[in-house]
Amino acid sequence: MLIGAIDIGGTKTMLGIINSDGIILSKIQFPTDTTDFNLLILFACEQLKKCVLDLGYEMKEMVGIGVSLPGMVDRERKLLVRSVYSGWQDFAVSEIIQKITGIQNVIIDNDVNACAIGEMYFGYKKTYRNYLWVTVSTGVGGALVCDGKLIRGASGCSGEIGHMKVEYEKPLPCPCGELGCLEAHGSGTAIKHYLEQEIAKSSDFANIFNRKGLTVDAAGCAVLAKENNRIAKSIYNKAACYLGRGLGYGINLINPEVVIMGGGVSSSLNIMHDVIMDTIAITVNKALLPVEVVHTKMGYNAAFLGAASLVLDNFNQ
Amino acid sequence: MLIGAIDIGGTKTMLGIINSDGIILSKIQFPTDTTDFNLLILFACEQLKKCVLDLGYEMKEMVGIGVSLPGMVDRERKLLVRSVYSGWQDFAVSEIIQKITGIQNVIIDNDVNACAIGEMYFGYKKTYRNYLWVTVSTGVGGALVCDGKLIRGASGCSGEIGHMKVEYEKPLPCPCGELGCLEAHGSGTAIKHYLEQEIAKSSDFANIFNRKGLTVDAAGCAVLAKENNRIAKSIYNKAACYLGRGLGYGINLINPEVVIMGGGVSSSLNIMHDVIMDTIAITVNKALLPVEVVHTKMGYNAAFLGAASLVLDNFNQ
Repeated sequence: MLIGAIDIGGTKTMLGIINSDGIILSKIQFPTDTTDFNLLILFACEQLKKCVLDLGYEMKEMVGIGVSLPGMVDRERKLLVRSVYSGWQDFAVSEIIQKITGIQNVIIDNDVNACAIGEMYFGYKKTYRNYLWVTVSTGVGGALVCDGKLIRGASGCSGEIGHMKVEYEKPLPCPCGELGCLEAHGSGTAIKHYLEQEIAKSSDFANIFNRKGLTVDAAGCAVLAKENNRIAKSIYNKAACYLGRGLGYGINLINPEVVIMGGGVSSSLNIMHDVIMDTIAITVNKALLPVEVVHTKMGYNAAFLGAASLVLDNFNQ
Repeated sequence: MLIGAIDIGGTKTMLGIINSDGIILSKIQFPTDTTDFNLLILFACEQLKKCVLDLGYEMKEMVGIGVSLPGMVDRERKLLVRSVYSGWQDFAVSEIIQKITGIQNVIIDNDVNACAIGEMYFGYKKTYRNYLWVTVSTGVGGALVCDGKLIRGASGCSGEIGHMKVEYEKPLPCPCGELGCLEAHGSGTAIKHYLEQEIAKSSDFANIFNRKGLTVDAAGCAVLAKENNRIAKSIYNKAACYLGRGLGYGINLINPEVVIMGGGVSSSLNIMHDVIMDTIAITVNKALLPVEVVHTKMGYNAAFLGAASLVLDNFNQ
C-alpha cells in the first residue's frame, strides 16, 4: 500500500511515499516558502508525483495523500483555517491537492494531531492508549490521545498546552498576544531568549559561542549544556521547569500513561529530563504517578510519518 | 423504569428512587457517618428498600442501583479505592450492596464522574457534547466529557483539576500534600481560610458576622458579598481568579463548549462569574473562546441524579 505524505512545516516541507508499515520509500525535503501557499502546494504535488514515478509506480496506485499543516485545521470543511507563523488563512488544501494530483483521498490535519496519530501507527504503536503528545520547537503544541482516540474538542482546537499559563509573577509575552504561556517560557524560542539575556550579561559566556562556532539558539545552548556549562545548563533547567509545569497540567487532567515529546528541542530531552520529572512530581496528584516523559519513536520524521498515518486512520474510522 | 440511587458524600448521604426521565420519586438524606463504612452501606440499603416499598413497588422491579462515591473508584474491580476525607480504602461496594439488596446490577463511580454523566441524561442532556464538569465544594474536582464520552484516563483518575497548580509564588498547602493547588486556593475551604484571615485582621468585619448570625464559611461570606460588602467581595474575587486559572487550563486542553459547575460553592457562581470570565479571557487561547461557565441544571441533586444516570449509561455501553 502506497501512501503519499506531505508535511508542511513553518520552516521546512517534507514529502514522500510511505508504505502501510511505515517504511519510508522516498523522501524529499526543502525550505517552506511562505510567500505563496498555492505555489508551495503546486510544487509539493509535483515533487510527490516525481517520487512516485521514480519508484516505478503510477499515481493511481497511491491509496491517498496525508497532509500535516502548521496551524488550525477544519477537518470537516477541509480547510487550513489559520497558520500564525506563516500568515496563511482559509486555504482549501484538500481540494487544491485533489485537483493537481487527481487523487481524491486527501486527508489533512494539524501537525501535532498528525504526530499523535502517527505514534499509534508508526511509533509506540499499541504500547500506549492514553498519552499526551507534545511538540517543543519554535513553539509548543499538544495533542491528547485518550483510550486510543485523538481528542479533537468542540472546535477542533484541543491540546493548546502551549498557551497554558506557567508563570504569573514574571510572565513573558507570547506570540498569541497573552502573557506567561508555556510557549513563551519553555519553547525553543524561549531558550534562545534566555540565552541572549545571558550572553548580554557575560562576555565570557558570549565568547564560548564565538570560539566554538555555535549558533546562538536552543541547539547551540544544548551543545554547551551537554558539556556541563553552568549557564547553559541553568537555561535548560529553567525551560524544563516550565515544561514540567505545563505537562503537569496535562497529566492531572487526562491521566495519561506517558507523555511523548517531539519537535526540535525534544532532541535535548535528556538534558531536561530530571528537572521535568522533578517538577511533575510536585505538580501532579500522586494517584496519577508515575508517568514517564519519553522521546517520540518517530524522531525527526514525526510529522511526516504522521501525515501518512492520517490516511490509514481515516480507513479505520 | 425504577432506578435506585445512592450518593454517598463526605458529609451527607442522599438516596432514593428515580425514573428514567430523571423524575425523583423518593428521596432521603442523612449525615454520612464515616466511622464504619459497612454499617453505612447497610443502613443506606435498608433505607432504599423502604423507599421502594413505600412507593408500592418491590425491590425486584428496580433495574439497578447507581452509587456515587467520594473518592477514587476502580470500575473494573468494583472497588472504592480511596476516599481521602473519610479515610475509607478498598471497599468492594458493589458486592456488599448486591448481597444486601439482592440487586445484581450495581454500578459505582466517583461522584464527579457521576455528575458529568448525569448532566448528559438529566441535566443539559444533548445540548453539549464537550464539557468540563467541575465541582467546587470543600474541595475541587473535575471530569471531562469529550465527544459525548467521559474521559477516564489510564488509571481512572482523569479530571484532577483540583490539583493543578494555580499559585507558584505564594502557594498554600493542599490536603494532597502539595502546594498551590486549585483546591487550596479556589475551594470552599480556601474561601473559609481567606475569611478567617480577614476576620482576624478586622474586628469591624468580624462583628458583622456576629450581628447577622452568619456562619464563618463560604456560605456566610457569600451572603455579605451579595450585599456588596467590600471585603467579602474581595475574598470571592480572589477565589474566582484562581478558579478562572484552573478552568483556563482545562479549556486550553480539551476545547469544551462549556464549563458546567456544581457543588456547594457553585451556588455563588453569580458572585464569581465576572472575575472567572475575565481570567479565562486572558489565560485561554483566543481560538477556543468564547466558552461559558454555567451552573449545573441538576442543582443540589447533581451527584444523586448522577448516581442514577450510571445505571442508564451502563445500559448504553
